[in-house]
Amino acid sequence: MRKTILALMLTTVAASPLAAREGMFTPEQLPEIAADLRDAGIEMDPADLSDLTGFPMGAVVSLGGCSASFVSPQGLVVTNHHCARGSVQYNSTAENNYLENGFLAPTMGAELPAAPGSRIYITTDFTDVTERMREGTAQLTPNERYDTVEQRMKDITAECEQEAGYRCRVASYYGGDEYKLIKQLEVKDVRLVYAPADSIGKYGGDVDNWMWPRHTGDFSFYRAYVAPDGSSAEYSEENVPYEAEHYLKVSKSGLDNGDFVMVAGYPGSTSRYAMLAEVENTFGWNYPTFQALLTDWIGTIETAAPEGSDARVKYEARLAGLNNYEKNLRGQIEGARRVGLIERRRAREAALADWIAADPARADYATAIADLSALSQESATASRTSFWYGNATRAQLLGVAQRLYRLAKERELPDAKRKPGYQERDMAFFRQGLQALDRRYDADVDKAEWKLFLDGYLGQPEAERVAVFDNALGLTSVDDAKQIDAIIDGYYTGTSLDEADTRLALMDASVAVLEASDDPFMKLAIALYDYEQGLENEAEERAGRALALRPAYMEAITQWQSEQGQLPYPDANSTLRITFGNVMGGSPFDGMEYLPFTTLEGITQKDTGIAPFNAPERELALIEAKDYGPYELESIGSVPVNFLSDLDVTGGNSGSATLNAKGELVGLLFDGTFESVNSDWDFDPRTTRSIHVDTRYMLWVMQNVDGAQNLIDEMDVVD
Amino acid sequence: MRKTILALMLTTVAASPLAAREGMFTPEQLPEIAADLRDAGIEMDPADLSDLTGFPMGAVVSLGGCSASFVSPQGLVVTNHHCARGSVQYNSTAENNYLENGFLAPTMGAELPAAPGSRIYITTDFTDVTERMREGTAQLTPNERYDTVEQRMKDITAECEQEAGYRCRVASYYGGDEYKLIKQLEVKDVRLVYAPADSIGKYGGDVDNWMWPRHTGDFSFYRAYVAPDGSSAEYSEENVPYEAEHYLKVSKSGLDNGDFVMVAGYPGSTSRYAMLAEVENTFGWNYPTFQALLTDWIGTIETAAPEGSDARVKYEARLAGLNNYEKNLRGQIEGARRVGLIERRRAREAALADWIAADPARADYATAIADLSALSQESATASRTSFWYGNATRAQLLGVAQRLYRLAKERELPDAKRKPGYQERDMAFFRQGLQALDRRYDADVDKAEWKLFLDGYLGQPEAERVAVFDNALGLTSVDDAKQIDAIIDGYYTGTSLDEADTRLALMDASVAVLEASDDPFMKLAIALYDYEQGLENEAEERAGRALALRPAYMEAITQWQSEQGQLPYPDANSTLRITFGNVMGGSPFDGMEYLPFTTLEGITQKDTGIAPFNAPERELALIEAKDYGPYELESIGSVPVNFLSDLDVTGGNSGSATLNAKGELVGLLFDGTFESVNSDWDFDPRTTRSIHVDTRYMLWVMQNVDGAQNLIDEMDVVD
Repeated sequence: MRKTILALMLTTVAASPLAAREGMFTPEQLPEIAADLRDAGIEMDPADLSDLTGFPMGAVVSLGGCSASFVSPQGLVVTNHHCARGSVQYNSTAENNYLENGFLAPTMGAELPAAPGSRIYITTDFTDVTERMREGTAQLTPNERYDTVEQRMKDITAECEQEAGYRCRVASYYGGDEYKLIKQLEVKDVRLVYAPADSIGKYGGDVDNWMWPRHTGDFSFYRAYVAPDGSSAEYSEENVPYEAEHYLKVSKSGLDNGDFVMVAGYPGSTSRYAMLAEVENTFGWNYPTFQALLTDWIGTIETAAPEGSDARVKYEARLAGLNNYEKNLRGQIEGARRVGLIERRRAREAALADWIAADPARADYATAIADLSALSQESATASRTSFWYGNATRAQLLGVAQRLYRLAKERELPDAKRKPGYQERDMAFFRQGLQALDRRYDADVDKAEWKLFLDGYLGQPEAERVAVFDNALGLTSVDDAKQIDAIIDGYYTGTSLDEADTRLALMDASVAVLEASDDPFMKLAIALYDYEQGLENEAEERAGRALALRPAYMEAITQWQSEQGQLPYPDANSTLRITFGNVMGGSPFDGMEYLPFTTLEGITQKDTGIAPFNAPERELALIEAKDYGPYELESIGSVPVNFLSDLDVTGGNSGSATLNAKGELVGLLFDGTFESVNSDWDFDPRTTRSIHVDTRYMLWVMQNVDGAQNLIDEMDVVD
Repeated sequence: MRKTILALMLTTVAASPLAAREGMFTPEQLPEIAADLRDAGIEMDPADLSDLTGFPMGAVVSLGGCSASFVSPQGLVVTNHHCARGSVQYNSTAENNYLENGFLAPTMGAELPAAPGSRIYITTDFTDVTERMREGTAQLTPNERYDTVEQRMKDITAECEQEAGYRCRVASYYGGDEYKLIKQLEVKDVRLVYAPADSIGKYGGDVDNWMWPRHTGDFSFYRAYVAPDGSSAEYSEENVPYEAEHYLKVSKSGLDNGDFVMVAGYPGSTSRYAMLAEVENTFGWNYPTFQALLTDWIGTIETAAPEGSDARVKYEARLAGLNNYEKNLRGQIEGARRVGLIERRRAREAALADWIAADPARADYATAIADLSALSQESATASRTSFWYGNATRAQLLGVAQRLYRLAKERELPDAKRKPGYQERDMAFFRQGLQALDRRYDADVDKAEWKLFLDGYLGQPEAERVAVFDNALGLTSVDDAKQIDAIIDGYYTGTSLDEADTRLALMDASVAVLEASDDPFMKLAIALYDYEQGLENEAEERAGRALALRPAYMEAITQWQSEQGQLPYPDANSTLRITFGNVMGGSPFDGMEYLPFTTLEGITQKDTGIAPFNAPERELALIEAKDYGPYELESIGSVPVNFLSDLDVTGGNSGSATLNAKGELVGLLFDGTFESVNSDWDFDPRTTRSIHVDTRYMLWVMQNVDGAQNLIDEMDVVD
């Protein structure tokens, strides 16, 4: 099946060039887009991009959730400020507030350990494991198929991770049509080298988030350290900087409107092949419902953790996340309305159906798609029915109890048979999660949140109520708010899961010990266990069916798209992708145009002196003095701060290297415009624009504002 | 002194052309800007614009607060929808909701009377009365000077209004340096001819107010009716359409980006010559304070008059006004910060001082300016001190009582000696105000507002408290909120001023009768009378001083500006002005650009189906069908809806005819962009843009959506 897709792509692309810059291409696809890359203006051999361990792709790394790249042979890594900010925060104290003042290590010895759990993943191998993954799965029952696929993933991963210091992952492409094993060196000793102050690195903050025009200095530097023998090692003074075989040159000039740019990074997830039923459920119900809930949720936290309180400090990150999500959903909903997403998806499915009907040889597709469509509807209904139950079980300590009890259950099995997330390889992360809870938990706030969710749950019709939950919590006889308050209070006064030591100790507890526990959250978790297992089993049954159906759908739609002159590519799945295009403004909506670059003067224009618009005095004075140095872009008469391109990116791409036609670093991707967020579902070339910080601004700040000349000297800065 | 200014302007303008489109020029100034008009692209003889009763200026009329123009020989007048909306609302009923459905009179007989008080003012004469106004005023005391100027204004007005059917007004220019007598035919029989539905005429509503991109069909039609003999007459079936000697041709094509446009209309008020002390007080204190108060005020009304309540209906207009004002103030504050208004004004005064110091012959200017600056500071202090007292006396029924008592007092004097606003010529308007109160008053809401203002007042330091007010209201012993509630309640239960008949009857009451009244609001009004008279007297004393000082300042600054190559013009004062420039987008801030035109498709993009983004289905279908007819602008591939220009306008200009190079109607001015509102204080050519509805959109809607072919036929529509 895969062969067919590839063959089709090869024949079609030669005939018709791409219409727009849509496409998150896998490195394997590069030969097929070589001609388009040349048309777009690339000046290096596109074939070089296919070699993941050669230049320049070998310089591209993942931070797990963010992308980054090497910019010196001594393991210096550049990424977004917002990707490294946790490490800045982790090292900040009242005396040394690096968030407020920025941090610069004048020497390697002064570099600080990154936040616990920080990793740099360097890809070393990339293997097709499709045959082994899919062999003999067609004839199995859905649950057997799901289990088999999961077990093979674990087995392949375990084999790969025999080599110490590496993390491996089996990634699925095209809905399970293809599988790749990705092997990465796991750098565990990550150190913070340089981060500008929030007033530069987070300039514009939540207000400007997803917005253009933008003036954010969203860059920071880490360094990868390994054992003296080059192997992965936990933090140690003995460790030495990782010797990066490939690293990017940093361009200090040349990028202008219309110029070729490309981004190599790790986009997280897209839904471009989602079926109509899912789109309808998402935009007709789930997103609007959740967006409304998010608004209430944010309000609840803000009330329970007033500004200036200790609790607020613990919930800052969650509030930022919820606000970000709420704004994203709003953008998604508006974008879907603007482009008529549901109608477009309906039209696409109808056109695909016509194409299938036009050739009797495609009849199998029709059956598979009809089944998948029904399944998609079934999944939508299931997600809708359990929406409020899912929210009503969001209390943080309940989640802790559920994970601990599940761990005890899983540990009764041999490691290879345990669920992903509960194997020995997951325990460091598991433990860290239990530890970190203290920094983001406050009983009163958690209680207020749980109350909000329970109120929502109690307002739902009978069909969405879960008897075992109602009984365990004693909700059946509840008819006023005070009773709920009393019930909830009992949980928080009776629990000891709010103590880190207790939580960590329970990682070793047996099922029997936990079942004897008096902790109310643990009792609730145990009461819900069978019901949750049932939900999981049902979800896996549906996933098992999808594993058989979706590849056929993907084969049909990609074949049809190819015939339309498009170059299909798999939905984003946190694996390395390349997207290319040009520096480009655009009209987000009628009557308005985004210019491709912002300027230093725009910072002064926005500045109010109050965060998030409080650029350092020193920076404002340099702008006033028009002290541009060698970083001026003549066509705009200033130093470019951020720029737009028509690249196809999404969350996870943050921190990605933006490369010019020669493969030199010209910027870091860090955001998309508000009108772009819906591109996760439907790429609209008219409105999709990604936002990058320009290396000229980065270098200007490093040289003039922060005095990071040592790092400029370490990098290979070219004209 | 005036001579000097004019002479200077004449010599300077020839030497240096205008740098930007700043300038609200009086018709007299047209000879001086003729060359610039030609440079900008005018194709008619600029001299024709000076003749206020010739073509095209004779077609331009005032609605009092809005501008408008004749577009047929039968008295058909076009203005903004928002200028005529009160008349649409006045005629709407539950069965015939013209706001929702629009209104079109298929024949003249079906035209509806406009809202009470609607007027069309047609200028018939314009005379310089400076000598008579200023003669011998220099040697008077400030209060004598103020009284003399006021008395002369009344006398000249009264003489002019000897001719029945005319309204006259003496307008002051350049801070009292020049005075003009303006004589206007007052058309009292105004009828509503056509208004599109709110979903076109108010498309975008408060959300889009002051914003670009814009898609508002802000046009409506009135017709002027007069007695069969051509004289002004109240509404009567006998009346006939006014035969307009001059009317504008309506262009259906031709306007494109960069084209010449000019606007003739009645801008209300600007403060471009305000002194530093006033600017500092306004932007450093008054605007921010009032903007914060407005936010509370809006919230108070929204709470007291919940959505859907009868009270809310009464307060819709006030809420819209307050929201508009709040947004305007926000724009002003942001704009002032962006351009550095205070610093710019300080620099201007310093530069002016240098210019004065450079020539000993200018020493008198220095003295006058120093005195005016001190006076400006004094006025700022006075306005600040009485800010909260002023708010605390905002209760609507208190205002009624104050006006009635003042009327009784004034009526003890012969008409010519009464204060403006209390003369016989003002009584129709006075009566109408008392009548209309019922439609915008609700006791509970008024009470909540008064409470808000009293709370603010009570929070002020001793110096800002007014003893007579505190005593009359019994505030001296108040120390908790409940006591205030009880005091306030007493006023509303004890008053009968909430009855229209009572209010109207009291217009004839004597001072003695009113002083015997038990009405609590009347008693409060009487108690405050002497204090208010004192405030008025102090204000007049300052105004009297300004009348002597400001002309010198204006002479100095305009002379200096002329030497800088600028063409000075007087601040807006609700008199006819001409501004010219070009169709032009612009960059409101770094990284963003406004395109000069919006398109029909932009309506569809914005449309959510929910007001204010709920275009009629019929319109959306026509857009979908790309049914542009002859109204398409090729360069944008659609019918232009609204467009931007760099014209210099302000409130009062609404409804103004936008004319092309040939003097044909190409649009109606209706708004400025958010970044422009601060131009009332300081014109910034980079950001000041006015917003117009394009006649092509007007004609497209009339022809295709509303079927107003009868009006298209009546007008002279040209290619």
